Amino acid sequence: MSDRLYIFDTTLRDGEQSPGASMTRDEKIRIAKQLEKLGVDIIEAGFAAASPGDAESIQAIAEVIKDSTVCSLARANERDIRAAGNAIKPATHGRIHTFIATSPIHMEKKLRMQPDQVVEAAVAAVKLAREYTDDVEFSAEDALRSEPEFLCRIFDAVIQAGAKTINVPDTVGYAVPHLTTDFFRKLIEGTPNSDKVIWSAHCHNDLGMAVSNSLAAVLGGARQVECTINGLGERAGNAALEEIVMAVRTRKDIFDLTTRIDTTQIVPASKLVSSITGYPVQPNKAVVGANAFAHESGIHQDGVLKHRETYEIMSAESVGWAQNKLTLGKLSGRNAFRSRLQELGVLPDSEEALNAAFARFKELADKKREIFDEDLYSLIGDESNLYIERYKLISLKVISETGEQPSAHLVLNDSGDEKHVEALGAGPVDATFKAIETLACSETKLLLYSVNAITSGTDSQGEVTVRLAKEDRVVNGQGADTDIIVASAKAYLSALNRLDEGIHRAHPQV
Amino acid sequence: MSDRLYIFDTTLRDGEQSPGASMTRDEKIRIAKQLEKLGVDIIEAGFAAASPGDAESIQAIAEVIKDSTVCSLARANERDIRAAGNAIKPATHGRIHTFIATSPIHMEKKLRMQPDQVVEAAVAAVKLAREYTDDVEFSAEDALRSEPEFLCRIFDAVIQAGAKTINVPDTVGYAVPHLTTDFFRKLIEGTPNSDKVIWSAHCHNDLGMAVSNSLAAVLGGARQVECTINGLGERAGNAALEEIVMAVRTRKDIFDLTTRIDTTQIVPASKLVSSITGYPVQPNKAVVGANAFAHESGIHQDGVLKHRETYEIMSAESVGWAQNKLTLGKLSGRNAFRSRLQELGVLPDSEEALNAAFARFKELADKKREIFDEDLYSLIGDESNLYIERYKLISLKVISETGEQPSAHLVLNDSGDEKHVEALGAGPVDATFKAIETLACSETKLLLYSVNAITSGTDSQGEVTVRLAKEDRVVNGQGADTDIIVASAKAYLSALNRLDEGIHRAHPQV
Repeated sequence: MSDRLYIFDTTLRDGEQSPGASMTRDEKIRIAKQLEKLGVDIIEAGFAAASPGDAESIQAIAEVIKDSTVCSLARANERDIRAAGNAIKPATHGRIHTFIATSPIHMEKKLRMQPDQVVEAAVAAVKLAREYTDDVEFSAEDALRSEPEFLCRIFDAVIQAGAKTINVPDTVGYAVPHLTTDFFRKLIEGTPNSDKVIWSAHCHNDLGMAVSNSLAAVLGGARQVECTINGLGERAGNAALEEIVMAVRTRKDIFDLTTRIDTTQIVPASKLVSSITGYPVQPNKAVVGANAFAHESGIHQDGVLKHRETYEIMSAESVGWAQNKLTLGKLSGRNAFRSRLQELGVLPDSEEALNAAFARFKELADKKREIFDEDLYSLIGDESNLYIERYKLISLKVISETGEQPSAHLVLNDSGDEKHVEALGAGPVDATFKAIETLACSETKLLLYSVNAITSGTDSQGEVTVRLAKEDRVVNGQGADTDIIVASAKAYLSALNRLDEGIHRAHPQV
Repeated sequence: MSDRLYIFDTTLRDGEQSPGASMTRDEKIRIAKQLEKLGVDIIEAGFAAASPGDAESIQAIAEVIKDSTVCSLARANERDIRAAGNAIKPATHGRIHTFIATSPIHMEKKLRMQPDQVVEAAVAAVKLAREYTDDVEFSAEDALRSEPEFLCRIFDAVIQAGAKTINVPDTVGYAVPHLTTDFFRKLIEGTPNSDKVIWSAHCHNDLGMAVSNSLAAVLGGARQVECTINGLGERAGNAALEEIVMAVRTRKDIFDLTTRIDTTQIVPASKLVSSITGYPVQPNKAVVGANAFAHESGIHQDGVLKHRETYEIMSAESVGWAQNKLTLGKLSGRNAFRSRLQELGVLPDSEEALNAAFARFKELADKKREIFDEDLYSLIGDESNLYIERYKLISLKVISETGEQPSAHLVLNDSGDEKHVEALGAGPVDATFKAIETLACSETKLLLYSVNAITSGTDSQGEVTVRLAKEDRVVNGQGADTDIIVASAKAYLSALNRLDEGIHRAHPQV
């Protein structure tokens, strides 16, 4: 029987640390449900000590997720561990993941602690965590640049203190695969009772080797990999879950491992995360990119026709690519709508929210002939944020004419008051944003503006992402509509609303 | 002294095989010039036998590139080799890269040839190629799934026939790093006179391991890697040049190799390729993604402030990231404009083209306060296609109002005739495309629509990419303007123009 490889997803924690990728509680719950459906073993739901909002999100996820373990990150101190322990309390399976830096450069320059003090803090953290749950993971931050002897020493100590998983992160994305295998072998050999715990890899992609390093760790004895959907994460991101899972599956001859992942849920998970975070997936991204299974070359197409395996090592269907399926249309009733949302796992909690979504669906069906699952996702995404918004769009009129300066006239709801605003701009989107700013005076800087069509076809909805910065805060806003100007206005308002609600949070780096 | 690693860039050949990424001759020349500036050793400029247009592009590149070797791909047959040989004739340094499949599945199912026949064809191809140039490269297609004994036999034969570089491609992206190292060692040991040639790797990224596999090959003795800017290429793409170069540089302790690459030209090359092909780079892409050097987490920022190396293994400046520099403004004169274009390497060939570009620059400067290098790239990109266009946009008026159906009225130049068109649509972009279609009746399907702001700020130009499919052809069109609707119209017309000019081409897969 082949060994089991545990998949630990940190999209909601390390992934959320991507600039502007912060998510609301409801968005996190939607992603967590999809991760559960995907068969992820452990969902790292956040960093409870970061803010009350983070703790609340972890708690809410712990309440709804049954099949996957729900985990909170915590630095190796009492306050963090208690916050994590409380946040995961409702979980069927709960884990605390505590960490401290172990590399000379980090201990000296960042922690300003002696090695002995670091071991002491780690042991105390693990012991305290064990008061909340039997499932405690310990990470040695920047492990790949730490002394192996010191790592064996601290791992021995935390295993004695009750840690069940030992994670060895390549925090700065510096590792090279063949050395990673050797490094894991050395640690596992040099640590007493190493067979009593699961060894884990957590790799960053700064030099493009996160997936290979994770798999190299597996060859060296690791049986858990920490990864994210679409390889989201700080800087160049983490190892991509979809690549790791498909590599292990496609090269079973090498790895001989099984995972619990339902690979047909990979593409839906990728689209959901991309749509919620506003992070596009580039077409030439492995497994989940739009071209991953596209065959352009004539020779190649010929080869595929003659014999599929000449160029295909895995099938598009196996990872959940399918033709856009027409799911609903203008004549679909409330029941069909409701049951499709249920199938997609995005049914709103209240009847009011469902009614509001159905009204929006009817409105959309008037403008757009075919309604796809992607449209429904975006419809629900739009709805789920309504209740927290300070600004709402009531109506807009924009005129764009070559030779004239584009103009925008908007009617906005500002905390219940109707306000008329207008402006000229370099383009219709610029005019719209400027009109909004005559009211909001937000003093933000627009860092990014991007539009993606949700489905193909000219009547597709455009999904606009706007990234705003104010002082040192960065937020993303999204909006979708068949009218790109309306979608842009919604996205801009949603970013302003997030800026309004937000608070500063600490984000750890593992 | 450390060994030299040769960088072979195939953005213009394998990269161009990405769906819709086909480029015009002038676009290819612009990219080739940037690759030369970047210090690429070998530029694979195309596949001469694919079409007369491809051959012409290679020839044009061979005429202007002096420092890099210019290479054409060729199947192992007389017609292909002669086409390649003629195309590279003007080159200061010219290479012919010929290939044939060597895996049992490819020989049997695709080529329908016996192994002996394959060896014979390879030897004949290399001998013929040597009549055109001393610099001949041989590739064994799908080598990573071929029998090592057969590979040693065919490599021995082609080395005797005069091949100077032996390329071992992982055509389907199936390899795993530690086995790749072993595989290269075995081939190099088992092939007579293996020290007389340069060994080369060409890896695809289907399982996310292209970069690691390339570097694993280097550890096994390869001294050339074939790669592309942004990892562009068929399906999930090729190994990314920027990741390979930065990995070798950052981990000099492991690889102890030097390249000729000027790393500060990496980001400009990435932006140029992305803008010309319409392939966006995802923010969490290593080295060239917008977030690759962004530090979001509080802990992390603190670490960076305390000591830069705690989290940074390379600097943003070293790969050419710089703050947007204000280069030109409303008051800049023709000379300043001209010399900036020259510095950027995008000075048009004729005075007329320069005058037209300058007129457009003045127009843009009226709408946009600050003009950045990115704006100039897009301005020139726009200009360089004008002469081949059947359709041109003369003027447009679009009205978008909530509660009303958006309307578009356009005046187009159709091969010299002025045509008025109008339509209603689901949004202003849809209305614009539908208006154009009342004239063009192209029967195409819109596969992709995306917009990226070229610089930050609300008055930024939007760069729109439109991907159209007609029967089995796929084309991209781009348009840039401060007005997103105008940019969309331009992009749609540019895609139609490309469809109009295009011809079918065979694309090989290596």
